[in-house]
Amino acid sequence: MTPAEHAQLALLLEVAGTPKPGNVDRDRDFPDLRFEHFLAGAVGSGSGMRSAEAGIPVGEAFEEAIAGMSQQSGGNTQFGALCLLVPLVKASATDACSPDGVTAVVENTTVEDATGFYRAFDHVNVFVDDPPEGADEFDARRGSDAIPAIRDAGITLYDVMELGADEDDIAREWTSGFERTFEAGERIVELDGSLSGRGARVYLELLSREPDTFVAKQHGKKTAESVRVRAQEALQEVRQGNSELVHAFSDSLVEDGINPGTTADIVAGGLFVALERGVRP
Amino acid sequence: MTPAEHAQLALLLEVAGTPKPGNVDRDRDFPDLRFEHFLAGAVGSGSGMRSAEAGIPVGEAFEEAIAGMSQQSGGNTQFGALCLLVPLVKASATDACSPDGVTAVVENTTVEDATGFYRAFDHVNVFVDDPPEGADEFDARRGSDAIPAIRDAGITLYDVMELGADEDDIAREWTSGFERTFEAGERIVELDGSLSGRGARVYLELLSREPDTFVAKQHGKKTAESVRVRAQEALQEVRQGNSELVHAFSDSLVEDGINPGTTADIVAGGLFVALERGVRP
Repeated sequence: MTPAEHAQLALLLEVAGTPKPGNVDRDRDFPDLRFEHFLAGAVGSGSGMRSAEAGIPVGEAFEEAIAGMSQQSGGNTQFGALCLLVPLVKASATDACSPDGVTAVVENTTVEDATGFYRAFDHVNVFVDDPPEGADEFDARRGSDAIPAIRDAGITLYDVMELGADEDDIAREWTSGFERTFEAGERIVELDGSLSGRGARVYLELLSREPDTFVAKQHGKKTAESVRVRAQEALQEVRQGNSELVHAFSDSLVEDGINPGTTADIVAGGLFVALERGVRP
Repeated sequence: MTPAEHAQLALLLEVAGTPKPGNVDRDRDFPDLRFEHFLAGAVGSGSGMRSAEAGIPVGEAFEEAIAGMSQQSGGNTQFGALCLLVPLVKASATDACSPDGVTAVVENTTVEDATGFYRAFDHVNVFVDDPPEGADEFDARRGSDAIPAIRDAGITLYDVMELGADEDDIAREWTSGFERTFEAGERIVELDGSLSGRGARVYLELLSREPDTFVAKQHGKKTAESVRVRAQEALQEVRQGNSELVHAFSDSLVEDGINPGTTADIVAGGLFVALERGVRP
């Protein structure tokens, strides 16, 4: 398979993994956000990923992927995952699926790439936190309305991610050589069993190590830390072959409307890395 | 979405529908054939469907789709569904997604298309019945070894399907204006709820009306007829809001190794038709 196909399959394997506490998975739909919205999002984003593979600039390919992803009624399904996958696909197609390869791609992004990223917000409603102090004019929620300010300031897409890296784990991947993404990928290669099952396991491992920044933005840092601790407890039980606690944890997150979406995005990136390493269903 | 994207999404929605007695679905894996093999099959077959959309001849696009589908370790996941989808995509891209449109496509297939179809059997192990009497040299199980005989006899892909139409419901779709496929599509448009759920409902409706020819080939016509009757009983219960019997029916088919695969293929075709009619997740 090509890198773009691996990326599409990674999106599908990610959502098929279960249990993934707090997220839509093979066994869980939400009332307005269902498994099949993720299937449609993965199909629709395919052309953007093929563009990235073919050498189209990151921002333009990303906007195409998001426009394609948004052709379903569930809303934002895979925005964060595509933030990781588009540069990973480009790196894999031109150079290498490695921290250095993808860092070269993201560091070479331009002001034009930043405009593509902002235009992507016109296609779908994405939950984004307030911008850092003094950066109101670059608020991603403004979508393409922010483009004149971006152009005036000469800000590249990498600069945009640097601005967000303190508070957003997807942005931090961009500025850290996709550290957690590659770690997740190596871990998926190492595990046994179905790929979607490995994804679900790594989801829990990631969640037990660092608070999810999407949860922190929506519910505060205290809640995100408490989710991390509970994930750690659930993981300990899972390691002893007992899955009761992880299911209870999952139900409780859903009840409280807590959705560790960033962690799921990193798992999608990790599944891509594992597929590029030759693991296959 | 384009016709090729609709076809890919149709494959995914089909396998995500549950319960689909006897088949892999969102809630059911077999030991060696899992949900994620179907996800990979849908991703891998995408390029063949894009070729069909771009005007590549049916046989060549079909072989490309099957080669792509086969890049996973589960074996044959969607061969029959792709037999329906490739001409449907081509018809939708060039003419119309209609019985007349797709009939024009299949009736115009050539000897070259037949050779592509036979080459597709080189990529994956497909369960095929004995050929009709006197047609041993055209046995599809011979794969590309049968091509010289096909060329000598000047047999088109439509001719190949006509040879099989008495015993194989996929072949019969080719020679009947894709009658059951379009009926399934209209029914999916008419139903409410999630698209994968509608697909599962139509699967049961189809299975209750006609014996599945894949079951007939593997287990005999008597078994196929008994499966039909039991599907009818399960459907009656489902109509009264009781899903116990359909789950018991499903477990019993799995226990007996009975897999109504042709009916699932027709549902995939029907989901494609519904997506082309504007229904979307």
